[in-house]
Amino acid sequence: MALIVHKYGGTSMGSTERIRNVAKRVAKWARAGHRMVVVPSAMSGETNRLLGLAKELAPAKPTTPYNRELDMLAATGEQASSALLAIALQSEGVEAVSYTGWQMGVQTDSSYTKARIERIDDERVRADLDAGRVVVVTGFQGVDELGNITTLGRGGSDTSAVAIAAAMKADECLIYTDVDGVYTTDPRVEPDARRLAKISFEEMLEMASLGSKVLQIRSVEFAGKYRVPLRVLSSFTPWDIDINEEAVSGTLITFEEDETMEQAVVSGIAFSRDEAKISVLGVPDKPGIAYHILGAVADANIEVDVIIQNLSKDGKTDFSFTVNRAEFARTVDLLKTKVLPTLGAADIVGDTKICKVSIVGIGMRSHVGVASKMFRVLSEEGINIQMISTSEIKTSVVIDEKYMELAVRALHKAFDLDQPAN
Amino acid sequence: MALIVHKYGGTSMGSTERIRNVAKRVAKWARAGHRMVVVPSAMSGETNRLLGLAKELAPAKPTTPYNRELDMLAATGEQASSALLAIALQSEGVEAVSYTGWQMGVQTDSSYTKARIERIDDERVRADLDAGRVVVVTGFQGVDELGNITTLGRGGSDTSAVAIAAAMKADECLIYTDVDGVYTTDPRVEPDARRLAKISFEEMLEMASLGSKVLQIRSVEFAGKYRVPLRVLSSFTPWDIDINEEAVSGTLITFEEDETMEQAVVSGIAFSRDEAKISVLGVPDKPGIAYHILGAVADANIEVDVIIQNLSKDGKTDFSFTVNRAEFARTVDLLKTKVLPTLGAADIVGDTKICKVSIVGIGMRSHVGVASKMFRVLSEEGINIQMISTSEIKTSVVIDEKYMELAVRALHKAFDLDQPAN
Repeated sequence: MALIVHKYGGTSMGSTERIRNVAKRVAKWARAGHRMVVVPSAMSGETNRLLGLAKELAPAKPTTPYNRELDMLAATGEQASSALLAIALQSEGVEAVSYTGWQMGVQTDSSYTKARIERIDDERVRADLDAGRVVVVTGFQGVDELGNITTLGRGGSDTSAVAIAAAMKADECLIYTDVDGVYTTDPRVEPDARRLAKISFEEMLEMASLGSKVLQIRSVEFAGKYRVPLRVLSSFTPWDIDINEEAVSGTLITFEEDETMEQAVVSGIAFSRDEAKISVLGVPDKPGIAYHILGAVADANIEVDVIIQNLSKDGKTDFSFTVNRAEFARTVDLLKTKVLPTLGAADIVGDTKICKVSIVGIGMRSHVGVASKMFRVLSEEGINIQMISTSEIKTSVVIDEKYMELAVRALHKAFDLDQPAN
Repeated sequence: MALIVHKYGGTSMGSTERIRNVAKRVAKWARAGHRMVVVPSAMSGETNRLLGLAKELAPAKPTTPYNRELDMLAATGEQASSALLAIALQSEGVEAVSYTGWQMGVQTDSSYTKARIERIDDERVRADLDAGRVVVVTGFQGVDELGNITTLGRGGSDTSAVAIAAAMKADECLIYTDVDGVYTTDPRVEPDARRLAKISFEEMLEMASLGSKVLQIRSVEFAGKYRVPLRVLSSFTPWDIDINEEAVSGTLITFEEDETMEQAVVSGIAFSRDEAKISVLGVPDKPGIAYHILGAVADANIEVDVIIQNLSKDGKTDFSFTVNRAEFARTVDLLKTKVLPTLGAADIVGDTKICKVSIVGIGMRSHVGVASKMFRVLSEEGINIQMISTSEIKTSVVIDEKYMELAVRALHKAFDLDQPAN
């Protein structure tokens, strides 16, 4: 009698036919004797429809009161889909009840449109589970101290599911989505990419932050903090496949570092086209330079990713960093008007035609030479490395965007990711 | 600085363009110095869309848990439209905030899909009004003692608006709808029908219960119980008409019986095609017969309207009554299988081709001969009266459906309703 949390994305809830399939799948799990909590997203397209209406009516400058109303509006999408799923479960002969974020006691801060969960009071849901009911809980939303409805931001239903699983000490949280697991890299770039049966929490966190979009990164962080066993699997397998087979499908995000995992030095390759590079040239090489430049950027709420400072020459140095491509123009403008005049730097140059390619593997901790092998592989392909960034379990390089697919495929092969794991 | 409640129907909220017009109208009232509470319905079509989805997934037999989820689902329509209206008001430069039924403290019983309001806790709304904000409150819904979302049934937004106006002791509750007031009769039947500037609460109650669909009858009952001055007016007048002109437009439902009102003996003519007549023939004329027949009908939850018992002849009598036309077949079936065998009656005959025409007027209290004038007018038109039912301020007749328009027009003229009131 395990306590299991299922989470279904908007595509899985996209029509009454699909909701019926979700209900049949959940009913199967309930009949197998599991205590079931289900967290559905809004029906696909619904959140965009609602936000589109809001946009037509929105004031010129968004304010906190406006964001409050946006959350009030957007939260209806999950409320509707949760009620529909509970109805579909009842039609399958399963006792079911749905709760909104506030009914479930999902307490958040008041940061409308990107609230953070502070506390979950699961008393009512436990009583329902004890009574043999399946409980459907709206993802994506909560309620602040004053009773205002809040939402957790895009993809927040993943986070809701994990937070509920953590609060209720669920045995496993299953994230049903439109892919069947986490791959060694994106199969659209490398057809030989393999699905990983297991990945460590730390690797998943790096993969998610480096551009692999299977899971929202906040949900992975949450799973890590509360050690929630998480499984990513497909909602498009037939609902009536054997439950024992389904229970081990997809990819398990695990906290145990067993031998199998240590054998694979590199587990996956992530990449992202979302960044742009900015270089400040001819900067006087003296203490406080990094703070002078990046402090101004941080003050403008712009996130900086990779940072490098070149060796000094004649008392001058070059300073480069990457930002999200959408923030590129704003950052350059900020530096030119606010930083350059007081810094005595020569010039600013930017490049939006870059990409970041990363190898990720928990085995890198205990294996030397992994990064240098990466650099050798890229060099053999004639790919110039512009920037390098490393952490304990990943190495990222910034290269010309046009080499992205080539780099991913060469690294995938060089690190034997196309070979079946033993 | 009056406290005013505005209520807007689904058609008035039917598109972002229309929501913007509602916002402009409300902003005008707020700028004129009024404290404003606004109750919008769901955007037209939205409630039907949601209930349509539910129907596709519904279990064969609706249960209380199913009705609970229906309310959870349907309540999202008003939550979304309220948030959109608050946003539109912000765009007009008016501070605005929206609340759901549970946030506003609209406490109801647990009769899902047809809940009754028990209490409203307006503390939070008062604080907002004191701070100069316009408050938008979702109509149609509340929350029960256990925190389950409930709805008040179709048209429940009228009732919400009146209940909120009553709880907050509002100076007036303005119901904006797609007609510009209450008419002496339906202008589609009698082109000479006139809009009434005023109607008494009791007359409005009779008109609503007799088939005039301008206001939901429960909202009129509520207004009567708490003496809320109610005005029905059009949301399709330009939003920027002079506020003093707008404030006296439409029809005021009033509690003062002034001289003007006593002068009009009959205020309006209502009619309904929704009924069917059932006659039980050859019933032994002894005590307990009415209970024997109608008790069985009431036990089956079928509402009976007009009832007549004929004069007895040879110890036998005929007993006739009307029910809603949708219940006709079920009622006849019930009588044939359950009542006829034990009653010793001869036969049951039914007629669905009937209609009910009623004259309504508070002046009937002090004027004799009003009913007999009605019978004379119908007789002069050659219309046979099948049943008669009277109350202090109305007289209803059941006649052949084909004479309905003729009867309405003849009575409208005979009681001078086509003449301008002085």
